[in-house]
Order: sequence, then C-alpha cells, then structure tokens
Amino acid sequence: MAQSKFEYTRKFEVEDKLLPNSWIVVRIDGKGFHKFSDTHGFSKPNEKPALDLMNKCACCVMNDFNEIILSYGQSDEYSFVFRPDTGVYSRRSSKIVTNISSLFASSYVFHWKEFFPEKDLIYPPAFDGRAVLYPTVKNLRDYLSWRQADCHINNLYNTVFWTLVNKGGMTNNAAQERLKGTLSGDKNEILFSEFGINYNKESMQYRKGTTIIKKKVEIPSENGAGGTKLRTKTFQLDCDIIGDEFWNENPHLVEAFKET
Amino acid sequence: MAQSKFEYTRKFEVEDKLLPNSWIVVRIDGKGFHKFSDTHGFSKPNEKPALDLMNKCACCVMNDFNEIILSYGQSDEYSFVFRPDTGVYSRRSSKIVTNISSLFASSYVFHWKEFFPEKDLIYPPAFDGRAVLYPTVKNLRDYLSWRQADCHINNLYNTVFWTLVNKGGMTNNAAQERLKGTLSGDKNEILFSEFGINYNKESMQYRKGTTIIKKKVEIPSENGAGGTKLRTKTFQLDCDIIGDEFWNENPHLVEAFKET
Amino acid sequence: MAQSKFEYTRKFEVEDKLLPNSWIVVRIDGKGFHKFSDTHGFSKPNEKPALDLMNKCACCVMNDFNEIILSYGQSDEYSFVFRPDTGVYSRRSSKIVTNISSLFASSYVFHWKEFFPEKDLIYPPAFDGRAVLYPTVKNLRDYLSWRQADCHINNLYNTVFWTLVNKGGMTNNAAQERLKGTLSGDKNEILFSEFGINYNKESMQYRKGTTIIKKKVEIPSENGAGGTKLRTKTFQLDCDIIGDEFWNENPHLVEAFKET
Amino acid sequence: MAQSKFEYTRKFEVEDKLLPNSWIVVRIDGKGFHKFSDTHGFSKPNEKPALDLMNKCACCVMNDFNEIILSYGQSDEYSFVFRPDTGVYSRRSSKIVTNISSLFASSYVFHWKEFFPEKDLIYPPAFDGRAVLYPTVKNLRDYLSWRQADCHINNLYNTVFWTLVNKGGMTNNAAQERLKGTLSGDKNEILFSEFGINYNKESMQYRKGTTIIKKKVEIPSENGAGGTKLRTKTFQLDCDIIGDEFWNENPHLVEAFKET
Ligand SMILES: Nc1nc2c(ncn2[C@H]2C[C@H](O)[C@@H](COP(=O)(O)OP(=O)(O)OP(=O)(O)O)O2)c(=O)[nH]1
Ligand SMILES: Nc1nc2c(ncn2[C@H]2C[C@H](O)[C@@H](COP(=O)(O)OP(=O)(O)OP(=O)(O)O)O2)c(=O)[nH]1
Ligand SMILES: Nc1nc2c(ncn2[C@H]2C[C@H](O)[C@@H](COP(=O)(O)OP(=O)(O)OP(=O)(O)O)O2)c(=O)[nH]1
Ligand SMILES: Nc1nc2c(ncn2[C@H]2C[C@H](O)[C@@H](COP(=O)(O)OP(=O)(O)OP(=O)(O)O)O2)c(=O)[nH]1
Ligand SMILES: O=P(O)(O)OP(=O)(O)OP(=O)(O)O
Ligand SMILES: O=P(O)(O)OP(=O)(O)OP(=O)(O)O
Ligand SMILES: O=P(O)(O)OP(=O)(O)OP(=O)(O)O
Ligand SMILES: O=P(O)(O)OP(=O)(O)OP(=O)(O)O
Ligand SMILES: [Mg+2]
Ligand SMILES: [Mg+2]
Ligand SMILES: [Mg+2]
Ligand SMILES: [Mg+2]
Ligand SMILES: [Mg+2]
Ligand SMILES: [Mg+2]
Ligand SMILES: [Mg+2]
Ligand SMILES: [Mg+2]
Ligand SMILES: [Mg+2]
Ligand SMILES: [Mg+2]
Ligand SMILES: [Mg+2]
Ligand SMILES: [Mg+2]
Repeated sequence: MAQSKFEYTRKFEVEDKLLPNSWIVVRIDGKGFHKFSDTHGFSKPNEKPALDLMNKCACCVMNDFNEIILSYGQSDEYSFVFRPDTGVYSRRSSKIVTNISSLFASSYVFHWKEFFPEKDLIYPPAFDGRAVLYPTVKNLRDYLSWRQADCHINNLYNTVFWTLVNKGGMTNNAAQERLKGTLSGDKNEILFSEFGINYNKESMQYRKGTTIIKKKVEIPSENGAGGTKLRTKTFQLDCDIIGDEFWNENPHLVEAFKET
Repeated sequence: MAQSKFEYTRKFEVEDKLLPNSWIVVRIDGKGFHKFSDTHGFSKPNEKPALDLMNKCACCVMNDFNEIILSYGQSDEYSFVFRPDTGVYSRRSSKIVTNISSLFASSYVFHWKEFFPEKDLIYPPAFDGRAVLYPTVKNLRDYLSWRQADCHINNLYNTVFWTLVNKGGMTNNAAQERLKGTLSGDKNEILFSEFGINYNKESMQYRKGTTIIKKKVEIPSENGAGGTKLRTKTFQLDCDIIGDEFWNENPHLVEAFKET
Repeated sequence: MAQSKFEYTRKFEVEDKLLPNSWIVVRIDGKGFHKFSDTHGFSKPNEKPALDLMNKCACCVMNDFNEIILSYGQSDEYSFVFRPDTGVYSRRSSKIVTNISSLFASSYVFHWKEFFPEKDLIYPPAFDGRAVLYPTVKNLRDYLSWRQADCHINNLYNTVFWTLVNKGGMTNNAAQERLKGTLSGDKNEILFSEFGINYNKESMQYRKGTTIIKKKVEIPSENGAGGTKLRTKTFQLDCDIIGDEFWNENPHLVEAFKET
Repeated sequence: MAQSKFEYTRKFEVEDKLLPNSWIVVRIDGKGFHKFSDTHGFSKPNEKPALDLMNKCACCVMNDFNEIILSYGQSDEYSFVFRPDTGVYSRRSSKIVTNISSLFASSYVFHWKEFFPEKDLIYPPAFDGRAVLYPTVKNLRDYLSWRQADCHINNLYNTVFWTLVNKGGMTNNAAQERLKGTLSGDKNEILFSEFGINYNKESMQYRKGTTIIKKKVEIPSENGAGGTKLRTKTFQLDCDIIGDEFWNENPHLVEAFKET
C-alpha cells in the first residue's frame, strides 16, 4: 500500500514545545456555561454541587498528572500548575492542554450523578483550554492572585445582584442599574444594611474558590511497630492564596524552584 | 480590590492564530486506548459498538461546529476538516482543539450507554488533539489518504493476527513472528488459503473507516403543494476516499476552495 | 571541559519551521529611513540613486537565494518571494529572514559608493525583516498588489506634497492641511492645473516600484554552429503587477504552483 | 485606489512576541565564515583584526540597543543579552533579531577599513540570528558558559592543529588523525612538550572570547568644583565568565532580576 506517498502530510504538523524551566499553567473554562447553568437550573449565584463536581474533576486530572503541584478553581474554570521542570509530553503544548481539557470534560459527565443524583445531565459540556508560561514564582503567584481576585469580584457582584432580585424583588435591569459604578464597600453595605447579610460570613468556597494541593503527611506505619511513615495526601482548601500566609505554610510548593 | 495589579499576567498568554485561507484539520486520538480497550473487553480487532460510539461523538462535534465539511474516523482517532475560510474562534488554535477534544470526550461518556447498554464505563477517557494546516486540496486529500491507508494497513494486520491467534490457535508471539516481513498480498493469502477468509469481504467500516459529510438533498416541501426544498443532511459512509470517485461525487466539498 | 553541563541551554531554542507548500514572502524595511534619508540629504520625494541601490541589494539577495522567483521593492522596503516548495534552511523562519536582512544591509554599505560616488555613507543602516506565508497564488498576488498600491498612494501624496512645498512655496504644515481629505483625483488635478504636471508621465520607477524576475531567454550558443541555448537572465521591471497582463506574460512564475 | 481590497493580506503576518520577564539572548553567527575567512586570507587559527572588527560591530549594536546588558563574542558569532524586562519592539522576535543581525552586518562592512586598512573586502557577509529565552539567571549564565566553553574547546583544538601543520610540517589530514580522541590534557601536552608552547599563555582574547558590559564609573564632574559624577562606560573584557568571580564583581548585571 502506498502509504509513504501520503505520509509526507505528517510534516505539516508544527512543533509546539513550551519553554523549559518555567511554570506551565493550564487553564480550562466551560464553554457557554451561562447557558449550561440555565439549562440545568443551577441556583444563582452559586450551585454548590456544580462547584463540587468541578473540584472532583480537578482531582481526577491531578491524579492522572502527578506533576501538577496546585490547582485552583472557581466558577466554570480551573487552573492547573505544573512544576517548572515537568517533562510531561515533552512539554508539547497541544498534547498537554487537550489531554487535560478532555479528561476534565469526560470526568464531568462521568461523575455528574454523584453530585446531581436527582438531575439528568441534558447535554455534555465542552471546556476550552490554554497553556500559559510563567518564568518566576512571583509571576505565578500573581497569576493565581488574578484568578482569586476575579472570583471575589464576580462573587460579590453576583451575590448582591441576586439578593436584590430574589430578596429585594427587583427586576434584573433594575438591579444592574443599581449596581452600576458601585465599589466593593458599597456592595458590602447594600448587603448588610438592606438585607442583614454579612458578606464575609458567606461561604469561603464561594468567596475564595477552591485550591487543591498535595502534601506529605505522617501516618502511622502499618507494621504495627508504632512508627510513622510519609504519605502524599490531597488537600482541598478554600483559603486566601493572595497573601503570604498560604505560601509560608506550604513552602514545599515553590521553594525548590526559586532562584538562589 | 487590586485586580489591576495582577492582571498583567494575562499578557503572558500567546496568540496562536492559524494561517488564514488554509484547511484546518483537527485530529483527536484516544489516550492509551490500548489499555482502555482491554479494560472494557473490546473484541479484537474491532469492537463495532466502540467504533459506532466514536462516529456518534463525531456527529456531536459536527453539530456544534458547522464549518466542518468532512470528518474521518478509524480506530481511536477522528479527523475534522474545517473549511479554509472558517473564522471559528478567530482561528485560535488552542481554542479550537480543546473545545473539540473535550466535547468529543464528554460525548463519549454521555452516549456510552446507547452503544454499550450492558457494559459499564469503567473510567472516563481522554483524547489528545492537534490542529494541522493544509494549504491545498491536494495536500488535504493526501492527508485523508494517509489516514485511510493507515486504517487499511492496521486493520489487515490486526485481522490476520487475531485470526492466527483465535482461529489458528497461535500464541501472540508466534503470530507476530509469522507476520514479520509479510506484504499485503501475503496477508491476504494467509487469510484466504488457511482460513477461507476473503479480506475484501470483511466489513467496509473496518477496512475503510468512517467518513461523515453533509450534503444538500431535495425533500418534499411541507406546504402540501407537491414541491421540493433543499435540506442539509448528514451522511455516514464507509467508502474509499483515496481515489477520485468519492471526490467527483461530492464536488461541493472542495470545489469552491480550489484555485482557478 | 564540562561542556555537556551547559549544553542543555541549546534546548531552549524553539523550532520555527514555516508551513510547507505555501509561498514564503520575506519583506525587509529600512529602520528609521525617515532620518536616514534626511541625514544623507536624499531628494524628496525620490532619490533615484537610493532606489537603484536598493535594487542592487535585492539582486545580491536573489543571487544568493536562487529559489526567489520574484522581488518587489519601493521606498525603503523590498519583498522577496520564495517558491512554495523551497527547502531553504529547512524553511526555518529566523534563519531565512536574518540571512536576507543582514545580506541586504551589508550589500547596501558595500555598494553605496557605486551609487553615491560623491557622498559618504554617514552611518550603516539596519533593516527589519519578517516572513509571511501565502497559501494560494491569489493571496500572493494580492499581497504584491497591496505593496504596489501602497507605493502608488505614497508616491502620489509625496509628489503633490513636495511640489506644493518646493514649487508652490508652501510650508510643510500648509501643504499637509491642503491635502487633508483629498482623493487621488484631487491630487492629480492639483498637480496638473496648478503646476502643469501630468502625474502619469512621472517616472514609472517612482510610481510602480521595481519588480525583479528571472526568465529563461534564448541566446546564441557558443559553439559557432549557429544554434541557440537557454540562459536564465534577471529582469528589472517597473511595470504594473496588479493587473493580469504581467502574470499572463510571465506564466512561468506561478503556473507550476497552481492547483489543478 | 482599491488598497483595502488587498490589505487583508497583512492579516497573514503572525504575532511572535517573546514571553515577558525572561532573558532574551540574540545570537548572530556569520554565514559560511569558513569560506569568508579563506577568501580574505585570515590567519589561522585567529585573525586578530577580524575579531576586533566583530567586537566593534557588537559595540555598534549595544549603542543602538541600550537594554543589552552584556554581549559575548568568539569566532564568527556574538550573543546579545537583553534585560528580562525589556520592551524593545514590544518583544517582537523577528523585529529584534533582524534589526540586530542587519545592523551587525552593515557595521561589519562600514568599519572594515579601520581594521583592514590594507585589505579590500571582497564580498559583503551575512549573519544569521536567533532569539532564545532564558527564564532564570542560572539558565542565562549556563548559556554564556556554554558559549565560552565552546570557544575554549575550539580554540585549543585549532591552536594545536595549526601548530602541527605550520610548525610541525604535518599535512591537514595527518594533524587531524593525530588529534582524534585526544583530551584537553593531551592537547596541552603536545603544545608544550613538542613546541614549547604554554597554551595558558596564549592570548586571553583567543582563549576566552570577548565580553562587553556597561558599568557606571565615577568621573570628575565638569563644574570644576572637584566633585565627581556617574557616567556609564563600556568595558571590553577577555576574562572568564563561567566562574563566579566575574559575576560577583559585576552584581549590577543580574542582581536586580533575581527572585527574592
Ligand atoms: N447559576 C450559576 N451559574 C454559574 C455558576 N458557575 C458559573 N456559572 C455561569 C455564570 C457565567 O455566566 C458563566 C461563566 O462565565 P464565562 O465568562 O466562562 O462565560 P461562558 O462560560 O458563558 O462563555 P465562554 O464560552 O466561557 O466564553 O457560568 C453557578 O454556580 N451557578
Ligand atoms: N480491541 C480493540 N482495540 C482497539 C479498537 N480500536 C482501537 N483499539 C486500540 C488498539 C490500539 O492499541 C489503540 C489505538 O492505538 P494508538 O496508537 O492510538 O495507541 P494508544 O491509544 O494506546 O496510545 P496513545 O495514547 O494514543 O499514544 O486502540 C477496537 O475496536 N478493539
Ligand atoms: N527623501 C527621501 N526619503 C525617502 C526615500 N525613500 C524612502 N524615504 C523615507 C520616507 C519615509 O519617511 C521612510 C520610509 O517609511 P517607513 O514607514 O519605512 O518609516 P521609517 O523607515 O522612518 O521607520 P521604520 O523604522 O520603518 O518604522 O523613508 C527617498 O527616495 N527620498
Ligand atoms: N582563519 C580563520 N577562520 C576563522 C576565524 N574566525 C572564524 N573563522 C572560521 C572558522 C570556522 O570555519 C568558521 C566558523 O564556524 P561556523 O560553525 O560558524 O561555520 P560557518 O560560518 O562556515 O558556517 P555557518 O554558515 O555558520 O553554518 O569561521 C579566524 O579568526 N581565522
Ligand atoms: O473568556 P473571558 O471573557 O473570561 O476572557 P478570556 O478567557 O481571557 O477570553 P478568551 O476565552 O477569548 O481567551
Ligand atoms: O500516536 P502515534 O504513535 O500514532 O503517532 P503520532 O500521533 O503522530 O505521535 P504523537 O501522538 O506523539 O504526536
Ligand atoms: O512599518 P509600518 O508602519 O509601515 O507598518 P508595518 O511595517 O506593518 O508595522 P511594523 O513594522 O510595526 O510591523
Ligand atoms: O551552526 P552550528 O553547526 O554551530 O550549530 P547551530 O548554530 O546550533 O546550528 P544551526 O545554525 O543550524 O541552528
Ligand atoms: Mg474565555
Ligand atoms: Mg465559560
Ligand atoms: Mg469562566
Ligand atoms: Mg499519537
Ligand atoms: Mg490513541
Ligand atoms: Mg490511535
Ligand atoms: Mg514597519
Ligand atoms: Mg522603514
Ligand atoms: Mg518603509
Ligand atoms: Mg549555526
Ligand atoms: Mg558561521
Ligand atoms: Mg560560528
């Protein structure tokens, strides 16, 4: 069979290796989740089972790609941070992003029923994905801070908006008008003085998003001799990752990759 | 909130627009389907429901992306051909490939039960994806010929191999040894003279893979006046796409995009 | 010597191969030639020796890279068109553009005195360079038309502007104001009715730029037997390359590369 | 004029911005300098005026691009290191490399006579160029070490080779055979015991290449009041840049760009 005659077309593929020794962040984001959330009747602003399902999918991804040191998710998006020295798929960009977004998407369908036992999935979702490089720990932290700040801004807005609509009886348009030009402080104030809601007491998961890391912990060794051994465990957190505290408490995440 | 302070990190994303006016082919391929097929007890060399499920997923993708003019699938892979003038996602490569591979993967899980009513999906599959550009119709046809020739070569090999093992009682190693260095003709001969199998009578779907195209067909118009109207219909074919016949019969696929 | 310890840094280089089977156009453009022209007292709007020197440099480039089938130059820029099947430097983009721009620049200095026997070169010029791909002959011709249309637009503007200043005694500002919003017709009219200049009789080289091609011509063979033989000759033209005439007269340039 | 009709072809250009916040190294290398050196009768292994001319051209480049913090040259190549935060040409890769290689090449011709007053330049040279990113100071230093180690290896080899040929009366082939498989120590030994040459006393410029940096130095201020002021001066060095000493003495080069 004249395969060789056609095989030249493989040469049209382009190499897309990512620069060595820099952090690779893969961010995936649900396609058209505005519509997807509506279709599935997600509660507004936050449908906890949907967020938990996102976290579950992220764990599946981290399970398959053990060089991911941290994942951060909020709304319909998730960011996966690979060690700067990762050799995953020889750092081929499209290999990495497609494998991650497709695994995330198939896991979403696969695990749906665990989070929505009463609700059928109406259509299968897609997720876009992209790989971004960050040369330094500072750049990486700023990236994560950008996403967490985005979570905060959107969640505060959405919380007030839906409170005005659902509890305040406003139309969507009226609520939007009301919020135009308001600052964070104004929004907190509306919530508190008009509805008695202290935004800072809202669920951390909604306000901060979810951060997943691995950590070595001591567990009793099995030999019964009473000693301990180290085991890698996955932790799902809803803490602040903008400030230094989180990073000081988890120096293993980035210390090894800082310049000296 | 100091979002602007962090937003600079968005600038680290790279633009990856694909060259205008050239055919975009997105090929997805199952990750580790050797293991996936084993785990799910797929029959060898071909598990028809699995191939049909792949075709179903391809239809889902074509439904969502209406500028795909042709799709071709075999084994655990599928190729999607976009019109050269497509503006899908502004031709951003990673947007296109991740949306397609993730939709394919989530559809695979979503539709699994329709094809495997008796069999549970054990774990959700991932698919890698890549975008490749082909400047001319000739290059595009050669690409598709490459994939269909690959289908033929693998299927012929696998058919003889598993016949030797399953019907000839050989071990895997012995069958492999037996086939080392054989040409197409030799393999056909083994099948025919030793097992009475005429390879050319094997299922076209296995030997040729599946080609999906859209075509405008005349259907009776609904107004009862007896006229007809044009409707776009999807066709699933298992014909040869290497020779000219298929292309002569479907000039609408590429004619408009040839140089004059 | 511990070279291997450091050699890993070579891996940080990126592959930048250009898509096969598409036209490669390399355009170079003088860096800061506004200032360069002023410093060297070039006449306005056109300094013929400078344009001729540009053409000379283009010939040097075409001499070194024999897969360039056509070059087109105007003002401080030159475009070089490589055959779509060229394998020059394995189609490595930066190799191609840097070799061409640096050869063009060094030739500029090297040949300066031939064109400016009375004038010293005050500082050595730099040229930026870029490679652009065009999949079809139509795209390629449109590219060249874009550059020649640009030549026309700028030259017409500059011709009127400097006529208003030099012959009309206007200040630069006044001339600029006068031309604001005028169309081609208006500019032709100013030249003709106010200064008796018929723009279409201005030098073709200025109005059309310079096109360099190679062509096989018959020359008398040297053996004295009176026969002829084919020799490749370089032609420097100042004709229109937007219309079909030029392409019909020189079918060898692109015919072989059209789809059939 | 129907420019807009053609201007779409500009869209075929690709964006090639280099990742922010990483060191940009541009390395240029003479095209076919084996032949160029022969043609111009360069002495072997080192033609001092040719090396000095290279250094001169590097200074011209550094003069035009003031964000180059260090340049390193040897043989027919030069590396230019841009600050990681440089915004030169918006970090567009081809803009940067073509401007640098073409300026280097034109300067080579422009300054030739100052270094070869008795020798005519026979043809103008070209230089290829490439941009490479290095995320950390360590990577950058390793890159420079790689180039300086390369200089050492080649120069030691060439020194012995040409000594064997010119002083030892060997043919090129015999010298090559003699050196096959020898280590650094062997080569030093040949030079010393057979020709009384102590390699370590050979010119530093040949053994180490040339490093050019800028440094702020105190100079007497002009006002006559006896004070001093800071002025940026260019230093041309032929020292080792692999070890720490050079970097400790010049902390201003990289300290500001280290992670903290
Ligand atoms: N009701 C509800 N909606 C949610 C929830 N989480 C995310 N969403 C919706 C709100 C937003 O419209 C959408 C996420 O915004 P995006 O910017 O990603 O837009 P979308 O996915 O619609 O379009 P895209 O394809 O990403 O450009 O998902 C939730 O928990 N409840
Ligand atoms: N038993 C069985 N296996 C199949 C069938 N279709 C595909 N496969 C298996 C056979 C091959 O081992 C595999 C496809 O080959 P690939 O080159 O794509 O390898 P694989 O997916 O294992 O690795 P990859 O992640 O793509 O590099 O899928 C089928 O119908 N029945
Ligand atoms: N006086 C005079 N000037 C010319 C001639 N040919 C080109 N120039 C000047 C006019 C323009 O200012 C300049 C070409 O325009 P560009 O857009 O390339 O700008 P320039 O090279 O200054 O900046 P660039 O570094 O390319 O962005 O060269 C000429 O024959 N005579
Ligand atoms: N005689 C002599 N030759 C030199 C001197 N400096 C450099 N060269 C020659 C020796 C090498 O053959 C050549 C540099 O090696 P390259 O690997 O760059 O090779 P070349 O430039 O010939 O080819 P290329 O176009 O860079 O691939 O330049 C010198 O001072 N004296
Ligand atoms: O999707 P958006 O609007 O939140 O912003 P983005 O993801 O940066 O935009 P795009 O998906 O088009 O890259
Ligand atoms: O996956 P293979 O081995 O069939 O061949 P390929 O897909 O061209 O290789 P890769 O997936 O590594 O690009
Ligand atoms: O240089 P200009 O302004 O004529 O236009 P351009 O060459 O397309 O711009 P750039 O040199 O910045 O790519
Ligand atoms: O030119 P060489 O052989 O010294 O090695 P290189 O420069 O890495 O090779 P290339 O010029 O082909 O990139
Ligand atoms: Mg988006
Ligand atoms: Mg979304
Ligand atoms: Mg989103
Ligand atoms: Mg593969
Ligand atoms: Mg596979
Ligand atoms: Mg496969
Ligand atoms: Mg320009
Ligand atoms: Mg210019
Ligand atoms: Mg110009
Ligand atoms: Mg080289
Ligand atoms: Mg060289
Ligand atoms: Mg060299």
